Amino acid sequence: MKMEKPEYHIFVCASFRAGGDPKGVCNKKGATDLLPYIENEILDRGLNAQITSTGCMKACDHGPVMVVYPMGHWYGGVESEDTVDEILDALEDGEVVDNLLIA
Amino acid sequence: MKMEKPEYHIFVCASFRAGGDPKGVCNKKGATDLLPYIENEILDRGLNAQITSTGCMKACDHGPVMVVYPMGHWYGGVESEDTVDEILDALEDGEVVDNLLIA
Repeated sequence: MKMEKPEYHIFVCASFRAGGDPKGVCNKKGATDLLPYIENEILDRGLNAQITSTGCMKACDHGPVMVVYPMGHWYGGVESEDTVDEILDALEDGEVVDNLLIA
Repeated sequence: MKMEKPEYHIFVCASFRAGGDPKGVCNKKGATDLLPYIENEILDRGLNAQITSTGCMKACDHGPVMVVYPMGHWYGGVESEDTVDEILDALEDGEVVDNLLIA
């Protein structure tokens, strides 16, 4: 039996190295600290979204980085709950936060 | 200045836990062992694709798991170089490997 695909898949860079150590810029700047907040917001908003932490996404200069698929929105500077809110507000409205886009 | 977005973004589950330990099904079955092979294939084929390892994608029953965006193809049982080749062949042809889809 097939699984149900999430409507949105949000990837948050946690800078995992090959061996698993979370060491890079995104991690140091607190991207992973925001994971529980993002998960709660997804539930609160009733979004059909899955959140996945990742190894380095090679956008260290712009970290902490969050990428939203299937749209392919690459966001940088995701360092606060307010920024997460801004991104999720846009997502709900089918919009994009232009000034946070890095790609 | 903005980065260039990859045309395809391939996520390979490495089962990273919150602390970074790679411990789950996908990792044990060798998903991460395939990363160098996938990277080489991307280069050999000249694909504009980025590969990113991830924390648990919650599809452990189907692991090792690989997800290809922006199409949103969720593949399971990605345990061999032959399977990777099959998936990348399909990608190049704008197709999907139906019998490996898990979502």
